[in-house]
Amino acid sequence: MKFIQTPVKGMQDFLPSDMALRQHILAVIRGTYAQFGFNEIETPVMEHIENLTGKNGGENEKLIFKVLKRGADFSRSLDKVKADGTGNLAGEGDVLADSALRYDLTVPLSRYYSCHKNELPTPFKALQIGNVFRADRPQKGRFRQFTQCDIDIIGDSSNMAEIELIAATSKALTRIFEEVNVHGFTVHVNDRRILRAMALNAGFPEESVGEVFIILDKMDKIGIDGVKEELVKDGYDEAAVSTYIGYFSDLEDILKGKEGEEQAQIIEDFITRTCGDKIEAGVANSLATVMQAAGGMIDKDITLKFDPTLVRGMGYYTGTIFEITIDNYSFSIAGGGRYDKMVGKFSGQDAPACGFSIGFERIYTILKDLNWKSQDSAGKTAYLVDLKGASGRITEVFAKATALRGSGETVTVEPLKKNAKFQVGTLEDAGYTKIVKVYADTEL
Amino acid sequence: MKFIQTPVKGMQDFLPSDMALRQHILAVIRGTYAQFGFNEIETPVMEHIENLTGKNGGENEKLIFKVLKRGADFSRSLDKVKADGTGNLAGEGDVLADSALRYDLTVPLSRYYSCHKNELPTPFKALQIGNVFRADRPQKGRFRQFTQCDIDIIGDSSNMAEIELIAATSKALTRIFEEVNVHGFTVHVNDRRILRAMALNAGFPEESVGEVFIILDKMDKIGIDGVKEELVKDGYDEAAVSTYIGYFSDLEDILKGKEGEEQAQIIEDFITRTCGDKIEAGVANSLATVMQAAGGMIDKDITLKFDPTLVRGMGYYTGTIFEITIDNYSFSIAGGGRYDKMVGKFSGQDAPACGFSIGFERIYTILKDLNWKSQDSAGKTAYLVDLKGASGRITEVFAKATALRGSGETVTVEPLKKNAKFQVGTLEDAGYTKIVKVYADTEL
Repeated sequence: MKFIQTPVKGMQDFLPSDMALRQHILAVIRGTYAQFGFNEIETPVMEHIENLTGKNGGENEKLIFKVLKRGADFSRSLDKVKADGTGNLAGEGDVLADSALRYDLTVPLSRYYSCHKNELPTPFKALQIGNVFRADRPQKGRFRQFTQCDIDIIGDSSNMAEIELIAATSKALTRIFEEVNVHGFTVHVNDRRILRAMALNAGFPEESVGEVFIILDKMDKIGIDGVKEELVKDGYDEAAVSTYIGYFSDLEDILKGKEGEEQAQIIEDFITRTCGDKIEAGVANSLATVMQAAGGMIDKDITLKFDPTLVRGMGYYTGTIFEITIDNYSFSIAGGGRYDKMVGKFSGQDAPACGFSIGFERIYTILKDLNWKSQDSAGKTAYLVDLKGASGRITEVFAKATALRGSGETVTVEPLKKNAKFQVGTLEDAGYTKIVKVYADTEL
Repeated sequence: MKFIQTPVKGMQDFLPSDMALRQHILAVIRGTYAQFGFNEIETPVMEHIENLTGKNGGENEKLIFKVLKRGADFSRSLDKVKADGTGNLAGEGDVLADSALRYDLTVPLSRYYSCHKNELPTPFKALQIGNVFRADRPQKGRFRQFTQCDIDIIGDSSNMAEIELIAATSKALTRIFEEVNVHGFTVHVNDRRILRAMALNAGFPEESVGEVFIILDKMDKIGIDGVKEELVKDGYDEAAVSTYIGYFSDLEDILKGKEGEEQAQIIEDFITRTCGDKIEAGVANSLATVMQAAGGMIDKDITLKFDPTLVRGMGYYTGTIFEITIDNYSFSIAGGGRYDKMVGKFSGQDAPACGFSIGFERIYTILKDLNWKSQDSAGKTAYLVDLKGASGRITEVFAKATALRGSGETVTVEPLKKNAKFQVGTLEDAGYTKIVKVYADTEL
């Protein structure tokens, strides 16, 4: 049998130059988040299938890779699947598979926290970097195995959590991108409670709020008129649609260039006008605090803005939501929000939680496309030994290499290949500044 | 439905203190291997099922986690499984699953090299760190998801590959263990060709060589007499058994304390005496070169010894094999060898290959049991804000934190919890040296 050379569909092999970039980005992320007091943790890539199919994952639950049960009696199980009459994956979960590959890091974190909370500080500031898996249709920048970098604060119901998350993520992104001279990010902030109150106050019925969000979420692509058209087409009350669309009409103008107290007042007025009595007390004040404190912490070239059109897909958000976009790119590079109800699904006791996830693969793709090069300029030496004439000098060459490595240098020792030009070229590309071909009489 | 709090069976959650240790060990490994000129790469955790069930994995192939096919027509597939009459996992591979989680990093590396060799230097010195999966019975230090750290050199048929691998791995282990004051390793070196020639020369038939290795591999546990007994019990010719056992009787004495030329001569005599005409020319010489050059590169507290009882389980080894044991522990902490025939199974063209794998989880377990503590003693500041009296000071506190972080410090800002004693205690445990409770009148 001939083996298959290519990776599994939609999954990536990384060359040494790719890895240098990935490791560099991860080092900046780790270093920045450590400075903000986040603690790195790790969870397994496999999760109980019950945890991954409990409606926490939204659309992602349709994309899970299930792992075949080990040691099950499949003769009976398969009968059950057949009898079930579906003839496909649906419904087979508990007979063929009892675990699956995780589709995000938030569900595992919630399980982890509920399992270990007595061993963890409170509030708990977690950093988790790991691979997640989604059986999505592969396309540029979208893979079936990809890395996520999440920070989360569990056990802090105050908006200090939001402030730390926005400041830390903004700082990490600034550090990553300033090396390739990319500046200009926008942090979009909204609150699920505002979204909801605006829809109700405009006159949409309670049960339609989810649908309205899905259409509003297309604003980027189809514009405000497109949103209006689609709402009408879906049969919603025209007065409600008109009122709702009116809420968004002059927001950009109102917020442009405003900061501090003035901005806070504008946000408060907007919420009063659009949410009416459908909003709980304190939301406007909380949002204003986040905007003010986080605004004071982020770098000058980052715009922090209240964006009432921001929806975020995941159903589990309960309060503040945020997303970071990068100028001149059409996608977000980080996103997150507050999810106060998920930990309780594991422990039976709710814990306030808020997280921010960096879209690692997107950042990696941008920097790769911009031709990022390692700044590592330390001296690197290669000894290429001619095994025809100098094989007796191997011990001597290795002793020399050992001495140089002992003083901190990077040294490789290799046989001199027939195609020496290619060998030397690739070593030069890899940053070797001193390349010595060792023949019988070469002085070391 | 209530979610499940514990990790999937046999898999681990890591607390922040665990992760600090794991990251520390990985940093030492990465730093050391980079100095030796190894390039980090990454491959996906999933592999084509054909690649994992082609007899490269030995016993590990029985332990694979298979991933359910996506989008397959299971109504037909399940009929096929039933018709097959096994009613269990065996034989269902190609109808239910087309991929699986990898059980090691060597098979993925061979696939990777055959896929990308035109983009890689030659010889290619690879470092791969990643999770592998085996559905083994969980026990202390053995998990179903665990991390492996492999270095491999592909494209070097000379014994320079072995020398670099032994020197680099020994150096990484020395650096890891010197911090916890653990010294004393033994690097065991053997060659599959010697093992084979000894068995044939003693009189065992060709087809029994694999069986004989399996019994010899138990030497550690049952001693030389146990090996003899088991060989006889299995019905092997008593003369062959006697001759074979005789080969091993005085080896320790012969090698004790010998180095350089003298050691080389003893190894050569041993091979001549025990392998007869069953060994190809050059093996003794090659082994002597490895012992001499590697012996000169490793630290004084590491013993390098030729160990003709070393077997190593994997069927794919074709030449030199090696293993590192640590004094006072009964298990090996690293192992590897030459496997010149595996890349060819993917590319159709053999490439010489040799690798050394560090048993990361074992090392981690040893250091954790020895109570390793982070040496990180940089100043870390925590501001704990009383949200009753000082909520108006949040922006001010965060501004202060931002300034300190800007000068490189680690700072966390959190609400002051009701159980302040616990909160302060866990922060002190995490290395925070300055902890400021911020009330309305606290000076920052």
